[in-house]
Amino acid sequence: MSFSDIYNDKIKNIDLYIENYLDGLDGVEPTLSESLKYSVLNGGKRLRSILCTEICTLFGKDISVALPYAAAIEFIHAYSLVHDDLPSMDNADTRRGMPSCHKKFGEGNAVLTGDALLNLAYEIMCDQCINGDVNNVKAMKVIANCAGVYGMVNGQAIDLKLPHCDNVTESQLVRLIEQKTMALIRASIISGAILSNCDENKMKLLEEYAYNLGLAFQIRDDFEDEEEDLEDANDCPNFLNILGKDKAKEKLDFHANRAYEIISSFDKNSFLCEFHKKLFN
Amino acid sequence: MSFSDIYNDKIKNIDLYIENYLDGLDGVEPTLSESLKYSVLNGGKRLRSILCTEICTLFGKDISVALPYAAAIEFIHAYSLVHDDLPSMDNADTRRGMPSCHKKFGEGNAVLTGDALLNLAYEIMCDQCINGDVNNVKAMKVIANCAGVYGMVNGQAIDLKLPHCDNVTESQLVRLIEQKTMALIRASIISGAILSNCDENKMKLLEEYAYNLGLAFQIRDDFEDEEEDLEDANDCPNFLNILGKDKAKEKLDFHANRAYEIISSFDKNSFLCEFHKKLFN
Repeated sequence: MSFSDIYNDKIKNIDLYIENYLDGLDGVEPTLSESLKYSVLNGGKRLRSILCTEICTLFGKDISVALPYAAAIEFIHAYSLVHDDLPSMDNADTRRGMPSCHKKFGEGNAVLTGDALLNLAYEIMCDQCINGDVNNVKAMKVIANCAGVYGMVNGQAIDLKLPHCDNVTESQLVRLIEQKTMALIRASIISGAILSNCDENKMKLLEEYAYNLGLAFQIRDDFEDEEEDLEDANDCPNFLNILGKDKAKEKLDFHANRAYEIISSFDKNSFLCEFHKKLFN
Repeated sequence: MSFSDIYNDKIKNIDLYIENYLDGLDGVEPTLSESLKYSVLNGGKRLRSILCTEICTLFGKDISVALPYAAAIEFIHAYSLVHDDLPSMDNADTRRGMPSCHKKFGEGNAVLTGDALLNLAYEIMCDQCINGDVNNVKAMKVIANCAGVYGMVNGQAIDLKLPHCDNVTESQLVRLIEQKTMALIRASIISGAILSNCDENKMKLLEEYAYNLGLAFQIRDDFEDEEEDLEDANDCPNFLNILGKDKAKEKLDFHANRAYEIISSFDKNSFLCEFHKKLFN
């Protein structure tokens, strides 16, 4: 099987798990039920959920241990996109080439869809924690901390107020990105690690992996936006605007290489190593 | 001490707990930090949190066991009001005589404030669950289920689509209210009960108490709105519009009496009995 066949199978596996979970919700108001599926099952690349499941299985646990958390992370990611797209936030009419949630279902429904998704993330994780395994609670706690005022939501709040890019320094940008996008990538990796019950040394390395991968991923995204000539490319601030192309490429390579060094030290034949090469080469 | 002195002390106690918690959040973007406090510490009557702490202490546990859950429930209640007030939902300019969150901080910040509050509810509960006590997880799960697509959010979604009141039956209205407002009252009572580790017989009675108190409370609210000649009084549907005043009063008395029968059967001198009399007499 080729890498892309394996990758597509992993995406399908997560999407099927999410679809079954959402189909199993009983008595949900029909528009809300539809908008939930529309917003989560939208052809996403599943980077975050795959990081969670692959890290967990890399250290010997069955994927079933991580799947509810992987789904929760996708729910949180999807809710943040639905609310980000609202007219009062980024005012985006489309998402992945389709009408954004509020364009399709109306603004009130989009607010509720985001709320429902965030709450569902905790419902699916609570169901795991009820068995009394403290690692299950710890994994939920990491995800919760990365999603809220210590992470993603705070990054979004800073973003709302940030001055134009000519006033933003590299360290301010890194601090914004650490919260706005890297926190949920960290949550994916560290929750998978906690669920695998890996030791402290590995955990330290995985924290470093998460930091470097998250930063590299964001810079790569900034380059992609520029190449695709998206409106986002002119959004301030981003690494290309702040550092210039050459320095941004240097920074991308530096963090991508460090992330690869770490992940390949565990198993150089793992899916995550192949995934890394496809993302960054 | 008079009843109202005791009640005010209980409100102060919960508000102080919430204020200390919010003040302890480090590094939160200043506007977000301000809007969180503005939206939670707004002179609320603390009905839900007091139900949680009083039920828990009624059965012999220390209030400290319930306070984080009581705060979480207030965070969820506050987030629902912030999002409900948004222009795309109820479009309310004021809340308790003050500018609503989006009027004071802007719509984007209000969306994020609600998101942050919902997430904080789970962060504060996660911190309790980490000690491995399964009751702590069970209490969180009840709250999560009552807040989301099986409860409050679903009620709000139904509300967005409901036809005018001349087409709504009493049973449709009860189903709406069961999710939109009664679910969080149930969450308050049942989480307090779970945290107190009370037995199955008591739990059954408390489920009945929650149902009857929640319904009585909503009908009482409808009467208050009418008396105060609020705009809400004309909102469709409500129990006065659907049943007429006499039948609504009959229904209010029926459910309030049943709730009192149950709560007084545990201890007729409890704060909750006094509280009930003040609410319904």
